[in-house]
Amino acid sequence: MDAGRPASVSHMTETTKNIVKGDTGMQMLPDALRDMVTGIAPPAEDLRPQAQTKIDNKTKPLGALGKLEDLAVQMSVIQNDLNPELKRKALFVFAGDHGIAEEGVSAFPAEVTGQMVSNFLAGGAAINVICRHQGIDIRVVDMGVNADFDDHPVLLQKKVRKGTRNFAVQNAMTVAEAARALENGVAVFQEANRSRVIDIVGLGEMGIANTTSATAIICAVTGVSPFKATGRGTGVDDKGLEHKAKVIQKALDFHNPDPADGFDILQRLGGYEIGGIAGAVLAAANQGTGVVLDGVISTAAGLIAYLINPDIRGYLIAGHRSVEISQTAALEHMQLEPVIDFGMRLGEGTGAAMTIDVVDASCRIMREMASFDEAEVSQQN
Amino acid sequence: MDAGRPASVSHMTETTKNIVKGDTGMQMLPDALRDMVTGIAPPAEDLRPQAQTKIDNKTKPLGALGKLEDLAVQMSVIQNDLNPELKRKALFVFAGDHGIAEEGVSAFPAEVTGQMVSNFLAGGAAINVICRHQGIDIRVVDMGVNADFDDHPVLLQKKVRKGTRNFAVQNAMTVAEAARALENGVAVFQEANRSRVIDIVGLGEMGIANTTSATAIICAVTGVSPFKATGRGTGVDDKGLEHKAKVIQKALDFHNPDPADGFDILQRLGGYEIGGIAGAVLAAANQGTGVVLDGVISTAAGLIAYLINPDIRGYLIAGHRSVEISQTAALEHMQLEPVIDFGMRLGEGTGAAMTIDVVDASCRIMREMASFDEAEVSQQN
Repeated sequence: MDAGRPASVSHMTETTKNIVKGDTGMQMLPDALRDMVTGIAPPAEDLRPQAQTKIDNKTKPLGALGKLEDLAVQMSVIQNDLNPELKRKALFVFAGDHGIAEEGVSAFPAEVTGQMVSNFLAGGAAINVICRHQGIDIRVVDMGVNADFDDHPVLLQKKVRKGTRNFAVQNAMTVAEAARALENGVAVFQEANRSRVIDIVGLGEMGIANTTSATAIICAVTGVSPFKATGRGTGVDDKGLEHKAKVIQKALDFHNPDPADGFDILQRLGGYEIGGIAGAVLAAANQGTGVVLDGVISTAAGLIAYLINPDIRGYLIAGHRSVEISQTAALEHMQLEPVIDFGMRLGEGTGAAMTIDVVDASCRIMREMASFDEAEVSQQN
Repeated sequence: MDAGRPASVSHMTETTKNIVKGDTGMQMLPDALRDMVTGIAPPAEDLRPQAQTKIDNKTKPLGALGKLEDLAVQMSVIQNDLNPELKRKALFVFAGDHGIAEEGVSAFPAEVTGQMVSNFLAGGAAINVICRHQGIDIRVVDMGVNADFDDHPVLLQKKVRKGTRNFAVQNAMTVAEAARALENGVAVFQEANRSRVIDIVGLGEMGIANTTSATAIICAVTGVSPFKATGRGTGVDDKGLEHKAKVIQKALDFHNPDPADGFDILQRLGGYEIGGIAGAVLAAANQGTGVVLDGVISTAAGLIAYLINPDIRGYLIAGHRSVEISQTAALEHMQLEPVIDFGMRLGEGTGAAMTIDVVDASCRIMREMASFDEAEVSQQN
């Protein structure tokens, strides 16, 4: 074992017995999870030419609906249907606490994670309002909040541990915990999709200090410097911003992670909610469901899933352009362009939820708009 | 009379008897219209500090919802209510033909204007689909289409004339027709708002060759060169683009309009649908209703209204960033920033309709989201 890397294997528990160790992240996954991941196939790209022809023949100049046309074609390909439809729209808010908060990287105290989960359950947060407005089913997933919650119809209890360890000085989680986080995220999507088929899923998060974790992940994968890519999160000042970048750089120096190994990066630098989102992305892609990412944390989780299996890419829709700088590096790495840019930096899934309505509109355009022939409108000279 | 200017007064008809002539555009307006315009008051800016405090105390970092926060505050100010609400959302598509089409400035034949109006009435156009999706009442206004239409519940018959004159060689319309276009636009809004109060109105258009008219208007007002600001409209090629810019520059040289006189510019370079939209903007501002502009033509019409009375500005929401370059010059002139940027260039009101849902979401945020105190969430360190 590399002396410069903290020993993670020593943290292994009973639940990790079935982990096959090897050279790549894929081989570190438990059997069932690895089978699911290898079962992911890219969407039905052979339908793309027909979908493009259909949108091109609608009564409008070629390409005049911009991103709505791209989304209409992508959703046709994802659903393998020239009449794509979003009957059931779902959004999951994965929550978890972060040991790195001890380093003083956030403008808000750590107890806010649990308080905000209670706010989600009471229906008072921004994501609740937007989901009500857009007709999106919301569920909140406790992946690792440092608080206990009573059962609640909106809450899914999937806690791995009450907060990650401080990744400035050790791995954020054990191998077993990282696998558990992915598995729990998979289970969240699969259980919800089993009871009633989900046509689109948005993935958001809550976790004080998790922009620090997400930025570290993105810098590790893309090679961008934390001194360029670190953002203010919930609102640290200039001094706090510099401190945060230094904490991330020191952690990267300490862990020196393999930029191609998503599982290793998750274990070293991640959060339980980030692992949960990555798992949900993988499960959704396996089931052929479109996924709308949110801000920097959700995008970092998407990047983890992308490293584990790049075939997920065709199912991903980059929801919004976050104010957080590192998000752009992650999106560029996956060659994704965000749909909306409202200057938002809240997380929770708020950007994803606003984007889902745009995707919904694009599907209706594909289904309901007349062609030149149907409407007897003359075409371009 | 300036020899370089075409004689418009000779076109005056019976309906212009009550026009008071003078030095400014305002004095050219018929009495009733001038009274309405002078009756416009800016929105309730004294409520702005309270609205800002309310949004600042919601459970999120300061400013983290970006443009949604700006819209929430603006709608509170417009409705003079800290709980703004969009119960009834309306959108009008103003249609008219353009004599300038004779100059070969469009990629589509002129008969498409009438064909698309029929498409709107049949419910098959993009704007119909998006309005159905967003719960927006749509009405189509024939302001000057070179075709006849049977009565239809969605159609408002407000035709001034079957198409404007070719503004390359003469005024697009007479003084009387320009006044009539404004009056008809005012009537459209007032009549709809009388039967059931409109909480937000989107304003779109249809008219082959009307990006040429809109660009000429914007260049006349802002001083931007047509060779920089002319766009491809529905899709002219490079040669067509150069020709279009030359047509606009020649027309500006010919008319040499007063950049501060909105009424004169409308009469010389405008379209009946542009006059209709300008009238609707003025009427909505007079009634205290928020207005969502669409692309370059709708924005040019907003600019005409702004020149006639700049107090409308507080009621304006710039819907989307059009691909048409001159729109940005018009928005900057009014110091407006568009909400969405989807690479759209269709018009019809499609950008406005997509934006209305964002405004609606922002109002719900203002009404329904919990404050830090209500949710017992700790504030920033």
